[in-house]
Amino acid sequence: MDYQTTLETVSQQVLSEPTRGKVASYIPELSKVSAAKFGFHLTTVAGEDYCVGDSGERFSIQSISKVFLLTRAIQEVGPDLAERVGVEPSGNLFDSLVQLEYEDGIPRNPFINAGALVVCDLLLSVLRHPKQDFLDFVRRLSNCETIEYDPAVIASELALSHRNRAILYMLKGYGSIKNEAEEVLDFYVTACALAMSCRELSHAFGIFANGGRLLHNGKSVLCQRRVKRINAIMLTCGQYDEAGEFAFRVGLVAKSGVGGGIAAVYPGKYAVTVWSPPLNPKGNSDAGFRALELLTDRTGASIF
Amino acid sequence: MDYQTTLETVSQQVLSEPTRGKVASYIPELSKVSAAKFGFHLTTVAGEDYCVGDSGERFSIQSISKVFLLTRAIQEVGPDLAERVGVEPSGNLFDSLVQLEYEDGIPRNPFINAGALVVCDLLLSVLRHPKQDFLDFVRRLSNCETIEYDPAVIASELALSHRNRAILYMLKGYGSIKNEAEEVLDFYVTACALAMSCRELSHAFGIFANGGRLLHNGKSVLCQRRVKRINAIMLTCGQYDEAGEFAFRVGLVAKSGVGGGIAAVYPGKYAVTVWSPPLNPKGNSDAGFRALELLTDRTGASIF
Amino acid sequence: MDYQTTLETVSQQVLSEPTRGKVASYIPELSKVSAAKFGFHLTTVAGEDYCVGDSGERFSIQSISKVFLLTRAIQEVGPDLAERVGVEPSGNLFDSLVQLEYEDGIPRNPFINAGALVVCDLLLSVLRHPKQDFLDFVRRLSNCETIEYDPAVIASELALSHRNRAILYMLKGYGSIKNEAEEVLDFYVTACALAMSCRELSHAFGIFANGGRLLHNGKSVLCQRRVKRINAIMLTCGQYDEAGEFAFRVGLVAKSGVGGGIAAVYPGKYAVTVWSPPLNPKGNSDAGFRALELLTDRTGASIF
Amino acid sequence: MDYQTTLETVSQQVLSEPTRGKVASYIPELSKVSAAKFGFHLTTVAGEDYCVGDSGERFSIQSISKVFLLTRAIQEVGPDLAERVGVEPSGNLFDSLVQLEYEDGIPRNPFINAGALVVCDLLLSVLRHPKQDFLDFVRRLSNCETIEYDPAVIASELALSHRNRAILYMLKGYGSIKNEAEEVLDFYVTACALAMSCRELSHAFGIFANGGRLLHNGKSVLCQRRVKRINAIMLTCGQYDEAGEFAFRVGLVAKSGVGGGIAAVYPGKYAVTVWSPPLNPKGNSDAGFRALELLTDRTGASIF
Repeated sequence: MDYQTTLETVSQQVLSEPTRGKVASYIPELSKVSAAKFGFHLTTVAGEDYCVGDSGERFSIQSISKVFLLTRAIQEVGPDLAERVGVEPSGNLFDSLVQLEYEDGIPRNPFINAGALVVCDLLLSVLRHPKQDFLDFVRRLSNCETIEYDPAVIASELALSHRNRAILYMLKGYGSIKNEAEEVLDFYVTACALAMSCRELSHAFGIFANGGRLLHNGKSVLCQRRVKRINAIMLTCGQYDEAGEFAFRVGLVAKSGVGGGIAAVYPGKYAVTVWSPPLNPKGNSDAGFRALELLTDRTGASIF
Repeated sequence: MDYQTTLETVSQQVLSEPTRGKVASYIPELSKVSAAKFGFHLTTVAGEDYCVGDSGERFSIQSISKVFLLTRAIQEVGPDLAERVGVEPSGNLFDSLVQLEYEDGIPRNPFINAGALVVCDLLLSVLRHPKQDFLDFVRRLSNCETIEYDPAVIASELALSHRNRAILYMLKGYGSIKNEAEEVLDFYVTACALAMSCRELSHAFGIFANGGRLLHNGKSVLCQRRVKRINAIMLTCGQYDEAGEFAFRVGLVAKSGVGGGIAAVYPGKYAVTVWSPPLNPKGNSDAGFRALELLTDRTGASIF
Repeated sequence: MDYQTTLETVSQQVLSEPTRGKVASYIPELSKVSAAKFGFHLTTVAGEDYCVGDSGERFSIQSISKVFLLTRAIQEVGPDLAERVGVEPSGNLFDSLVQLEYEDGIPRNPFINAGALVVCDLLLSVLRHPKQDFLDFVRRLSNCETIEYDPAVIASELALSHRNRAILYMLKGYGSIKNEAEEVLDFYVTACALAMSCRELSHAFGIFANGGRLLHNGKSVLCQRRVKRINAIMLTCGQYDEAGEFAFRVGLVAKSGVGGGIAAVYPGKYAVTVWSPPLNPKGNSDAGFRALELLTDRTGASIF
Repeated sequence: MDYQTTLETVSQQVLSEPTRGKVASYIPELSKVSAAKFGFHLTTVAGEDYCVGDSGERFSIQSISKVFLLTRAIQEVGPDLAERVGVEPSGNLFDSLVQLEYEDGIPRNPFINAGALVVCDLLLSVLRHPKQDFLDFVRRLSNCETIEYDPAVIASELALSHRNRAILYMLKGYGSIKNEAEEVLDFYVTACALAMSCRELSHAFGIFANGGRLLHNGKSVLCQRRVKRINAIMLTCGQYDEAGEFAFRVGLVAKSGVGGGIAAVYPGKYAVTVWSPPLNPKGNSDAGFRALELLTDRTGASIF
C-alpha cells in the first residue's frame, strides 16, 4: 500500500472542498488557532511514517486525552474500573446531565465528560503526583520527552468550566467521586491541555494498533485483551454524539477532540491522526472526519 | 487456526458454567423451546464449516432478521434510507418511545424496533410481493430453499404486539411510515418469524465477512462499501442496550434475537452463529454471549 | 356585582385587541369554524345568567368533556380511580408518551390524553350503554335535552387519531386498559365530540360552583368532597401545559378544549364559559384566556 | 366557626394515628429534632389566634422560605421576574437537573431549587445587604423582631450542598445567574435556615390571606394582584412532587419545608401552619399534610 500517495491525494481532495464548520470558541484560547491548519500523519505497526501538511505542529488534544486517561486508569486499577463507569454509548450529548440523573451518578462511558471526570478522580486517588505521572506516561507512549501541558489553555478553560463543575458536583452528590470537585477539575483540564502534534499522537496511539506494544521498542504497555476493550469503547463512544456515523462512514477506531484533532487506529495495521480546527455541529473536525472517510474508501480497508 | 477444537473447548466451558437467564416468554410460542438447546456454527470465508451441538436445528431468528431487512432495503433504496432512519446508538431500550418523541419520529437506527418498522414500511412500498421477496432473499443468502416463516410464531406475536403498535401509530403520527400500521406490523412480525439454524445463519451472514459476496458461489450481493456500513451499524447498535459491552468483551460485529440466537461476523475471516435460548437481563443469549467472548479470547483475534 | 356590564366591558376590550392564535386544524372538521366567533356566558350559583356574543351557539367542546368523563367515573367507581390514574401535573405535553414510559403506564392525571383514555376504558367496563349513558349525564347536568354528539367531528377525528392510538396501545402493553384499543378510542372521540354552547357549558359546570348540586333544581350529583377534588385537578392540570400560567393570571378552576372553549368555575360564586376558536401556542383559546384574566382582574375576585 | 375545637379535634385524631415518615437526615442538624414535635397554629384575617401543641417552638423553615424570597423579589423587580423563572409545575423532583437541561437553564418555577436559586441571584444583585434586608423583611411580615437565621443549620447544609452546587453551575453555564455560584448558595442556604414557630409563620403568611396587608396593622406589603399570583404558584408548585395530591386532598394554598413545616392559606379567611418533622416519601410532613386535610374536611371549606 502506498500510504504517502494516498494521504496526499486525500488531503488534496479534502482541501479542495469548501471549508465547513467553526473553530471551537468556548475555550477562548482555542479560538486563536488558524482555521487553515491541516495536518495528517500515519504510522504503520512496522514503524513507517507518512505525513502531509502541519503534521508536526502541536495543538491542544483536548478530549483525545481521555483515551490516555482511561489507559492509565486501566493499568492502575484494571477491571475494578467497571464499578465506577460503564461502557455503553450514551445516546446523549457529551456534557449532558440527564442520563447521570436517571442512572444515579454512574456515567455511561469514560469518554463523555462525566466518565472522564470519574477516571480522573480515580487516578487522583492512586497516583502520587498525578500530573507529572500522566505527562510521563504520554511522553513514553509517544517516545517524545518534550510534550507539555499548555498553561494558557488550562487557565482559559478553568475560568469557564461551569458545566463540568455542575457534572462534578452532581457526581459528588451521588458519591461517584472521592476527591474535591475543584481538584478533579484541575487535573482533568490539565490532562486535556496536552499539546501534541499529529506525529506524536500517531506514535502514542500506535499501542492500540500494535497489541499494546510501543512502536519504537516493542515493549508491552497493555495486554491484547485490554487493547481490545479500549478500542471497543473508542469505536462505540469515541466521537461524541456521532460515533455511529463515524463507524458507518470511516470504520476505524478513533477519538476526537474539540481542538480539531482525531486520532484513529486500524488494529494490526496503523495509527493515523488528522488535525483541522473547524468543527462540525457535533463537535468533530469536519475536514478530519472527511479525510479519514476518504482514507478508508481509497484503501478499501477498514475494521469492517 | 483449528476452529473445530476451539468451538468444542468453548462449548464445553460454557456448558459447564451454571445456566443463567430466562427463555423469552412475552411471545408464548417462544417459551416452548427447551432452555437446554445449544448450537454453535462457524463458517470461514473459504467456505469451511465447523459446528457443535444443535447447530442444525432451526429456531426463531427474531431480531436477527432486522439485518436482512436492512440489507434488502439498502439494495432497493441505497443512501436514501438515511432520510428515514439514523445510524446512532440509541442509549435507550429497543422498544422505547421516549427518543422517538424527542426526535420527531426519526428512529435512531434500524435495529431498534422503531427503525426496523420504518425499514419494513419502506420495503412494503417498493416490493411487489414483500413476504415472498424477502423469503427468497434470505434463502438465496443462506443457499437453502427450505427456510420458512413459522406461522405459529407469527400468530402468537401478532396477538400481543401492543408496544409495536404504539410505536407504529406514533411513527404514523409523525408521517414516518406511509403504509397502514397493521400492514407494516404484519410484515415485520412475519420477517422476524423466520426459522433458521445456526448453520443457515452463518452461511447467510457470510456476505458480511466476505465483502458482500455469497460464500457458495462468490456472487456479489452488496458492494464492500455497504457491507462496511451494515457491519458498523451492527457493531454500534446490534445488541440492544448492550452493544458497548458486547464490543468490549467480544469484539465482533453481531446481531442478537430474543429467540436466543446471535449471528456474528469477523470481516475477512468468518461468520459464526450461536444459539442458546436463556436470555440475560438485557435480552441477549447469556450462553451465546459467553461463547463468543471465549471464542475471541481463545483465538486472540477480534476486529479490535 | 354587575356581571353583565363586566362581561360586556371585558368583551369589548378583548375584541379590540389584535387577534392572535390559530384555529385548530389537526381535526379538519374543527378548522371550518370561523375565527371570529366569540361567546361569553356567566351563571351564578343563584341561577342568574349573563351573556355576550355567540354564547348560544354550539361548538365542539373537545377536552372540556374530560371533566364530565372524570365526574361520571368518580360517580361510578369513587376512590378506586386513584389506582388507575394520578392527580399530579405532568409537566409535559398533553399527548406525550415519555412520562407514560418512565412511569410504567400510569397516567399522571385524568386530563392528559392518556389519563382520559383510562377513564374512558373504566366507563366502558361499568356502563351498559356508555355513549347513551354519558350523553344523558351531560344533558342532565346542563338541563338541556337537545345536546348531541357531532358525527362529522367524530369521523374527522377518528381518521387521524394516530397519536391517541399510540397512547392506547402503550397503555394496553402496560395492562392499563382492559377493553380493546379501538373501542376505547371510539368512546373517547365520541365523548369529546359533544357540541354545546357557552350557556349549556356554564349550566353544566354549575355543579362545580355549587357544591355538587344542579343549578336548576338543587339536586345533588356529587358530594362536596368530590367537587373539591375535581376542582383541584382542574386547577393543577386543566390547561394543558399552561395550568400554572392560567392559575397565575386568571385564578379560576377551569378546563379548556381545542375547539376554543374554556369552562371555568369560581367555587361558591359562578361558572363562566368563553369561546373563541383561535388557539395560542399551548393549545388554549387566546381570547378566552384573556377574557377570563380581565374578568377576575376587574371583579377583583378569584379563588386566590 | 369554632377553630380552637377543630384544631384540637384534628390534632387528637392525627396524633392517635400511627406515626409514618422519617425526619430529614440529609442535613445532619435537622435530624437532631424530635420526631414527636407537633405544632398547629391558625390565624384568621381578623387577627384571632388558635393554637395547639408546640406551636410556639421554632424550627427550621427551609423551603417555606422560598415564598418569602419570591415575595421580596416580586416587590423589587415585579413582572421582570418572568424572564428569569417560569410559573409551571415541573412534573419532576425539586432538585432535578433534567428539565433545566432540556429547557436551557430557565427553571420551571420559583419553588424548585433551581428557581429559588435564580430568585436569590436576583436579590443579591438588587439588595445592598441581602441577608439583613431579607431578615428584616420576614421579621416585619411576622411582626416579630427576634427571628434569626440558625448558624448551625447553615454550616451543616453548606458542607453538603453538592446537588445545589451542581444546579448553580449548570445555571451559570446557561447564563441564568449573574453572581458567583458560592455567593448565591450562601444566601440561599442562609435564607432557608430561618428558625420560626408555627405562630410566627401563620402571622407572616397572613398577607397571603389578607390581600397583601399585614394582619397586625393593615399596612399593604403587596397588591392584591400579586398576592393572587404568589398564591397560584404555591397551589400549583408548592408541595414538591405532590402539589396535585395536596390540592386534591387539602384544597389550600401552601408551601412545605423539609424541616416538617407546612404554611397554608385560605385566601380571605385564614393562614394556618402545622409542624411535625417526619416526612412522607415525597418530602412533605406526613402528619402536617393529614392535619390540613382533616381541617378542610371538618370545616367543609376550602378554596375549591
